Amino acid sequence: MTPRQNNRWVQHVTLTPPSLEDNTADADRLAKALSDGLGTDTVRIDTSLLKAIPFQLREWNYQATGVLFKEKDGSGVLVHLASPDSDNPLYGLAIDLGTTRIVLRIIDLVTGENLGESVFDNPQIAISPDILARIHHVEKPGGLDELNRLLIDGINDQLQHLCSQCDIAAKCIYLAAVAGNTAMTHLLLGLTPRWMIREPYIPVVNSPDVVRTSDLGIDIHPNARTLIFPNVGSYFGGDLIAGILYCNMDQLEETAILVDVGTNAEVVVGNRNWMMACAGAAGPALEGGVSKMGTMAGPGVIDRIGLDQDSLTMEIHTIGDLKPRGICGSGVIDLAAALFRSSMIDIRGKLVPERCGERFKIKNGFGQITIVPADQSATGEELHITQADLDSLIRSKAAMYTILETITGTVGMQPQDLKTFFIAGTFGTYIDPESAIAIGMIPDLPLSNYKSLGNSSLGGTTRLLKDHTCFDRIGDIRNGITYMELNVNQDFMNRFSAAKFLPHTDLSRFPSVKVPDK
Amino acid sequence: MTPRQNNRWVQHVTLTPPSLEDNTADADRLAKALSDGLGTDTVRIDTSLLKAIPFQLREWNYQATGVLFKEKDGSGVLVHLASPDSDNPLYGLAIDLGTTRIVLRIIDLVTGENLGESVFDNPQIAISPDILARIHHVEKPGGLDELNRLLIDGINDQLQHLCSQCDIAAKCIYLAAVAGNTAMTHLLLGLTPRWMIREPYIPVVNSPDVVRTSDLGIDIHPNARTLIFPNVGSYFGGDLIAGILYCNMDQLEETAILVDVGTNAEVVVGNRNWMMACAGAAGPALEGGVSKMGTMAGPGVIDRIGLDQDSLTMEIHTIGDLKPRGICGSGVIDLAAALFRSSMIDIRGKLVPERCGERFKIKNGFGQITIVPADQSATGEELHITQADLDSLIRSKAAMYTILETITGTVGMQPQDLKTFFIAGTFGTYIDPESAIAIGMIPDLPLSNYKSLGNSSLGGTTRLLKDHTCFDRIGDIRNGITYMELNVNQDFMNRFSAAKFLPHTDLSRFPSVKVPDK
Repeated sequence: MTPRQNNRWVQHVTLTPPSLEDNTADADRLAKALSDGLGTDTVRIDTSLLKAIPFQLREWNYQATGVLFKEKDGSGVLVHLASPDSDNPLYGLAIDLGTTRIVLRIIDLVTGENLGESVFDNPQIAISPDILARIHHVEKPGGLDELNRLLIDGINDQLQHLCSQCDIAAKCIYLAAVAGNTAMTHLLLGLTPRWMIREPYIPVVNSPDVVRTSDLGIDIHPNARTLIFPNVGSYFGGDLIAGILYCNMDQLEETAILVDVGTNAEVVVGNRNWMMACAGAAGPALEGGVSKMGTMAGPGVIDRIGLDQDSLTMEIHTIGDLKPRGICGSGVIDLAAALFRSSMIDIRGKLVPERCGERFKIKNGFGQITIVPADQSATGEELHITQADLDSLIRSKAAMYTILETITGTVGMQPQDLKTFFIAGTFGTYIDPESAIAIGMIPDLPLSNYKSLGNSSLGGTTRLLKDHTCFDRIGDIRNGITYMELNVNQDFMNRFSAAKFLPHTDLSRFPSVKVPDK
Repeated sequence: MTPRQNNRWVQHVTLTPPSLEDNTADADRLAKALSDGLGTDTVRIDTSLLKAIPFQLREWNYQATGVLFKEKDGSGVLVHLASPDSDNPLYGLAIDLGTTRIVLRIIDLVTGENLGESVFDNPQIAISPDILARIHHVEKPGGLDELNRLLIDGINDQLQHLCSQCDIAAKCIYLAAVAGNTAMTHLLLGLTPRWMIREPYIPVVNSPDVVRTSDLGIDIHPNARTLIFPNVGSYFGGDLIAGILYCNMDQLEETAILVDVGTNAEVVVGNRNWMMACAGAAGPALEGGVSKMGTMAGPGVIDRIGLDQDSLTMEIHTIGDLKPRGICGSGVIDLAAALFRSSMIDIRGKLVPERCGERFKIKNGFGQITIVPADQSATGEELHITQADLDSLIRSKAAMYTILETITGTVGMQPQDLKTFFIAGTFGTYIDPESAIAIGMIPDLPLSNYKSLGNSSLGGTTRLLKDHTCFDRIGDIRNGITYMELNVNQDFMNRFSAAKFLPHTDLSRFPSVKVPDK
């Protein structure tokens, strides 16, 4: 029995035919060969597959191609048996289950190739864009079913389109992997998230079983299996576990950090020996935090801003190089850094009217600064940032830095000791670390230490579908994380207050940042 | 978390309620407590059960009763969650799946009490009483489905009656265990046994997965699980594995033997360190062997015969003390022993007319001896044994002894070295070891070494339902058995020839047997 050595879930096996000296049954003979390829003690074979196996093995001259997966406890399971021809269509489906957006990606389980993607708004937005409102909706009669149905129907619709585009049959998809936050995965499974938002914030399940995809209602092969990435708690979901897998934090020798700023800020610090996590929902200043300022990243949104120090001219960049119609978090951070470098805001983030010149206005008693005049914007309205926006940014950046300081502190480190700083998600894609360092939001590390991961949730699910060794890592990552509740105590508040200055009260922490003279 | 320490599949658990310090999810918290009781790393919880768990745990104040089972790889699975009240009806179903007869037994999973039994003819007898004919029937279009349907419908019908009798609801049966020969378990699973009867005699599966009983079509709780006892090969079925479990051979320090004489003779020798098995289908003399002589044991059938040495009067005993209507294997063995002691047959088993007196007749050129005259039998016809019957018995007993000699020989022992001699099945229930020793069918051990097990297949399945520690033992037994093909070579034939004398050519092996003077 000589399975090809590879890490795919698809394993080709050649069996020694049975003889009087070796009368092992067909299924057990096959299971043994498949488990050798997967590195498991055993591979379970569904009764539904058993019936055909004796005929298939004899027809195929004791060669076969198996699509395998694992159960939660790590044992192997045969999902599908195909002829030993190399051209079987065997696909996998990776799902990033975002609160706002969902991404489907189809991959070839044999080659690992990405065959196509579909990005669409989470259909539950029809109930509410806000996850908390959706959780409350669950308590209405039929509310849970409604949210579940929206999600499943939406996925099935988009999957059908995607399969048409890629010219593949959905029934040739045998494996799926889903990562999302804890509330979203609960809604996918039809489980109530109601106790997640009530002290002591308990999910129904941390590590769901591998499920039959048909039990979820997703229309792929009827025997297909789905892994839903496990969560560490109500505020640390499977999307983060997927991110850790994707950036290989669990295999790094030197300590790294992974930060995901979405609806919440989630942070994990660690290396191959340990991992410590926390979520920023505990930081009151992060409510309505960075990502909610301005608009979400999208075409025509300002993602980068520079400021000529002499002429004080704004140099703006929009996504897609379109006329500007808004500003996203990374743009605001760039702006704040630029304003600070030019002394147009002071170390508390307050606008300095005499430095801002004609861009400065007072409306309704509050200062604001123009970024794009009305005649240059896509909307025909002026784009500006108010003092309130800047105050909010300062609170957010201070909360972020305080969280980083707190979590590194619990392991006897300081933020500036981190060797690699992974930034996940859209925020990570657009943010300029130099600006974020300039305002003291993130530690003053060499820029090369910062790595933007892009959609690490989708990346992690894809990784699993391409490499079966990731399966056990996922369980190990989940079980290896120490989740720390952020105690917003006096100590935290003292750190938070110190971090509310630009870049920080303790300038020695930000040696690269040139603080302008008063 | 303090599960009661017991070996039942039903475990009562009391959970520590969640807190900010211990925010483990509901299902994971429950799984942990249940796995502690079962001694497994984890307990898997079906998505179908997950939905209710958060409500149940809160309603029941974090106490619950779980019905557990295991998967083939030994990991735990939650089959049903009940309230912590002690009076939940939680039942199990043991099935002895015989070629000829099927026995259902319902047990209380909490107390272990046997609640009722149903014994009925295998409905597949409508196709053929003979298993080989049924296997051939599988090759006709629809033949496999027909045999499977007969079996499942028959079980469901009888189960319905049994449940009515016991006044229980079938949907309160959560676990089932089935033991049968390899062909029967294949027919139960809807798997073709066609390659079992063709060299190299390969079953579809040796160790089937634990199945959902609903997938088999048996009408009990929809989430119920069934273990089908694994086989060692086409001729060594799960019924024997159940027998080994039942007699605890796998835990004995001293070497024992288990013999099951049914359609074939199956033999396993071993102790807690090793087991060696073979099946007697390889012995040509066993074809149409002992159990087929005369009729099967049943009411009015002669199971014991004595012979007054002086008067040569037959002392017969019938099952149920009814008028005799036939003679079963144990009666024939008794008779042969008695005839031999009285020199009415010689050491080759040939009738000695001058010793038999008026009981002896010659019909169609062959001798025969009357056991019950026509006027004393239930049928109104004379009951007798012919020289051909006796010749058949001699071949059978010689084959049996030769098999015992061969299998003990492979481990460097002799039949007379065995410490315990278990005899399974109906044959074991009725046979008189003293008579079987007298004709040299079984070794000359102290009578106290012989243990009749009764229906050890049913006993083994029942044991599993009462004691979860048996689950892993079943796999260990199956994997620990070395199955030996009986080579009918010159050596075997020489032993066979030597064993065709009463009790044996080598009298020193049977010191307790008094060989009458010529």
